[in-house]
Amino acid sequence: MRSASGSRPVTLTAVAGIGTIRPGADLAEMIATGLGRAGLTVARGDVLVVCQKAVSKAEGRVVALAAVRPSDLARRIGERHDKDPRFIEVVLRETRRIVRMNDHVLVCETHHGFVCANAGVDSSNPLRRGTVTLLPVDPDRSAADLRAGLGRLLGVEPAVIVTDTFGRPFREGQVDVAIGVAGMRAWRSLSGGSDWTGRALHASAPADADMLAAAAGLVVRKEAGEPVVHVAGFRYARGPGRARDLVRAASMDLFR
Amino acid sequence: MRSASGSRPVTLTAVAGIGTIRPGADLAEMIATGLGRAGLTVARGDVLVVCQKAVSKAEGRVVALAAVRPSDLARRIGERHDKDPRFIEVVLRETRRIVRMNDHVLVCETHHGFVCANAGVDSSNPLRRGTVTLLPVDPDRSAADLRAGLGRLLGVEPAVIVTDTFGRPFREGQVDVAIGVAGMRAWRSLSGGSDWTGRALHASAPADADMLAAAAGLVVRKEAGEPVVHVAGFRYARGPGRARDLVRAASMDLFR
Repeated sequence: MRSASGSRPVTLTAVAGIGTIRPGADLAEMIATGLGRAGLTVARGDVLVVCQKAVSKAEGRVVALAAVRPSDLARRIGERHDKDPRFIEVVLRETRRIVRMNDHVLVCETHHGFVCANAGVDSSNPLRRGTVTLLPVDPDRSAADLRAGLGRLLGVEPAVIVTDTFGRPFREGQVDVAIGVAGMRAWRSLSGGSDWTGRALHASAPADADMLAAAAGLVVRKEAGEPVVHVAGFRYARGPGRARDLVRAASMDLFR
Repeated sequence: MRSASGSRPVTLTAVAGIGTIRPGADLAEMIATGLGRAGLTVARGDVLVVCQKAVSKAEGRVVALAAVRPSDLARRIGERHDKDPRFIEVVLRETRRIVRMNDHVLVCETHHGFVCANAGVDSSNPLRRGTVTLLPVDPDRSAADLRAGLGRLLGVEPAVIVTDTFGRPFREGQVDVAIGVAGMRAWRSLSGGSDWTGRALHASAPADADMLAAAAGLVVRKEAGEPVVHVAGFRYARGPGRARDLVRAASMDLFR
C-alpha cells in the first residue's frame, strides 16, 4: 500500500492470541502461532516488538515474594515508602546503583545500565498473585534468541526489539523504550551527512529502536494478552545492534 | 485493512511535497495540498504530526544571527563551547533556566518548561544560511490553530501534534517528542483500572502524544522537505489536551 506520491507507510499491528506465557515456554513458537492466527505474514525487513514481561515470564524471571527475605535496608526503605519490604529487596538485588530516591519512587540503575523505576521489577499483570517479574538477565541476548527462533519457524529473520515502559525525567507519563535489540542498529548516525545548506550534521542520531518501541506502545495491549507488535515498512539500518548501545555511560551522563 | 483476527493496524505515512515554508505561509493550506497530492484522506480520528521547524518557519520564528548582539555572558559561554556567541545569545534569550552545562552541551529549560539542548534553538536546515529557528511561542496554540485551519479545509478536524527532536538523560540518540498538542489528551491515565489479578494500576499513564511523536519520527524526512506525517488507526483519548500537560513541574522533578 503506497500513497499516490510513493511514500511507503509504516504499519503497526498488535498480534492477538499469544496466550498465557509460562516459564520455559517457547516464546518464538507462541509468537509464530499468533502471527499465523492473525493472518500476519512476516517479510524480510519487518520488525517484531515484544514486551519485556512476555520475555521475562518465558525465561522464568519470576520471583514469588513469599520466598524473599528482606534485608534490614530493604525493611527501612519499605517502611519509608510504604511498600512491601520483600519487593524492595528484589529491587535492590537488581540494582547496581540507586540514582534517585524519595518517599514515592526509587530510580535505579540496573546491572545492565538501564535507569528506571524499581530497577524494572514489576508487580502488575503477574504470572500468579504474589509474584513479580524481573528484567531478562541479558535482553539483547533474549532478542537475538527470539530472532533466531522466529527465523527457523518463519523462514525469514525479523529484527526483534524487547521493550519496557519507563518513566523519564522532565516529562510526565511513560513511553516504551528498547531494552533488547537484534538484527538492526539501535540508533542511526546522521553525522557525516549534511543539511540542504551543506552544513554538517553533528549530533544527529535517531534512536530507531526506541522510536519503534514507542510506536509499538500505541497498539500493544499487554493487559489483554497482546504483548507483541508486528511492524512493516520501516527501513532500519541493518547490521548488528544492541540495546546496550543506547545506554549512555554514567561518566558521560550529566544526570547521574 | 484488518488482520484476520480483527486487530486494526496503525499506519504512518510521510506527506511528501509540502514545499518550502516561508514566514507567513499558510501551513494548514500547504499541508492540505500535500495530503491531496499524496492521495491521503484524513478521516475522523486521524492525527497529523508536524515537525517544529515547519511551524516555526511559518510563524516567522527565524532569527538572522547577523542581527544579534551577544551579551558578555554569551561571549564567555561561546568561547568556552567553541560556538558562535550570537547563537548562544539567542539560546539564552529562549531560556528560563540553565539545567546543565559543560563544554559540549547547554541543557536549558525553555520559557514553556521543556528541557532540551540549546533551548530548542536550531541551526540545521535553516530557511536561509546564517539563520536559526526558535521554538514556537506557544506550540499548543500552534497545534490548535493548525487543527482549526485543517478542519476548515478538510471538513474534518484531525488531532495535531507538533514535535521536536530531543536528547534525553541516560540514553544515547534522540527521539521526537510532542511540544504542541490539539484535539486529544497528551497522556492517558490507566489509574483506576486494574490488571488481570484485580490489582489496581497506579502510576500507569501512557504518554500518547510522545508515542505518536516518536512513531512519526520513523517516517518523517525533514531533510527531504517532508515534515508532516499522517497517522491513521490510533484510538487516542478525545478531549482537550496540551503538550504542557507532559511537562513535569520542576518542583516535582528529581532531575532538575
